Amino acid sequence: MVGETLATSLAGLGHDVMMGSREAGNGKAKAWAAGAGGKNGTFADAARHGEIVFNCTLGSAALAVIRLAGSRNLAGKILVDVTNPLDFSTGTPPSLSIVNTDSLGEAIQRELPRTKVVKTLNTVNCNVMVDPRRVAGKHSLFICGNDAGAKTAVRELLEAFGWEDIIDLGDITSARATEQLMPIWIRLWGLLGTADFNFAIVRN
Amino acid sequence: MVGETLATSLAGLGHDVMMGSREAGNGKAKAWAAGAGGKNGTFADAARHGEIVFNCTLGSAALAVIRLAGSRNLAGKILVDVTNPLDFSTGTPPSLSIVNTDSLGEAIQRELPRTKVVKTLNTVNCNVMVDPRRVAGKHSLFICGNDAGAKTAVRELLEAFGWEDIIDLGDITSARATEQLMPIWIRLWGLLGTADFNFAIVRN
Repeated sequence: MVGETLATSLAGLGHDVMMGSREAGNGKAKAWAAGAGGKNGTFADAARHGEIVFNCTLGSAALAVIRLAGSRNLAGKILVDVTNPLDFSTGTPPSLSIVNTDSLGEAIQRELPRTKVVKTLNTVNCNVMVDPRRVAGKHSLFICGNDAGAKTAVRELLEAFGWEDIIDLGDITSARATEQLMPIWIRLWGLLGTADFNFAIVRN
Repeated sequence: MVGETLATSLAGLGHDVMMGSREAGNGKAKAWAAGAGGKNGTFADAARHGEIVFNCTLGSAALAVIRLAGSRNLAGKILVDVTNPLDFSTGTPPSLSIVNTDSLGEAIQRELPRTKVVKTLNTVNCNVMVDPRRVAGKHSLFICGNDAGAKTAVRELLEAFGWEDIIDLGDITSARATEQLMPIWIRLWGLLGTADFNFAIVRN
């Protein structure tokens, strides 16, 4: 769902988008490609295709998918990581499988040392990701990663989605800070009965 | 610092405040009491004195202080827990010593089964706690705990400080969600160079 929402929006903005799946003939990816004028293929195909690659997988599958995509296919490229390490095995609400002194963003960066991992968008629902104006008023998005140039390139994509208050938290270790917003996000989601909300950092 | 700021503000609002310390003759507590027209004593004295007791201790000391205060002295009362389980032993930024599937708020509630623990104020600097208007614009404060009546009583105190958008996240397990805001709070503090900021939950 997250991948489809982002892919549709990026295709609509004129980008040449390929959706990767575990299998080349994945029916949903094929249907998406046909409908949105995009392409589809394996995770490795998509990794080879993209200059900027979005990781929109389930947190518990993220590292396995990264390995299927292939570190060689992602070398020198930007990987935008929008995942959260949600662990549903401990019941509801989910806990985090990587937390506190590590994060999924860092684990992915360790797995892909030649790739510029940028963590962002993981603190909002996918509809808000591509259309921040769904939530009225000023609200904030976080970005972090080790490569300044990669963050600038991703910031441009985010601005094309309509994001205005994009806060650079620093290097990829800041993924700990944004992934740990999930517990409150999930409780607020239950409380508000909608995913159309967001955090704002209010400052003078 | 947190205790003094809250105590001064509560005394100014007309409350009969006693500041507890490890030792009855603590110089800083004595000086505070003389200056603010309050009282001072041991943690046990303060627990006996208060109808609503604020736990403003260092996270790493919180449970030890609660034991010094005495569960019997706190039975039937409201304990407002404003602490965070920050662990500076792992370097800077600090990690959390209790996290993910547990929280310091829950640990304190388990230690004090006959006390109504209300977790709140732990997501803002102490100056903002007692004067939310230091941060311009609408921003949010979280509250959680198992006892609805206790939350209502604490909400009235928070409103007296000037808080308007107070979000009840549910029972004390929601302390996990607010304590896990510390990692991003600390990074934002470094980034903004001031503690005069806060989270807002922006919704339609």
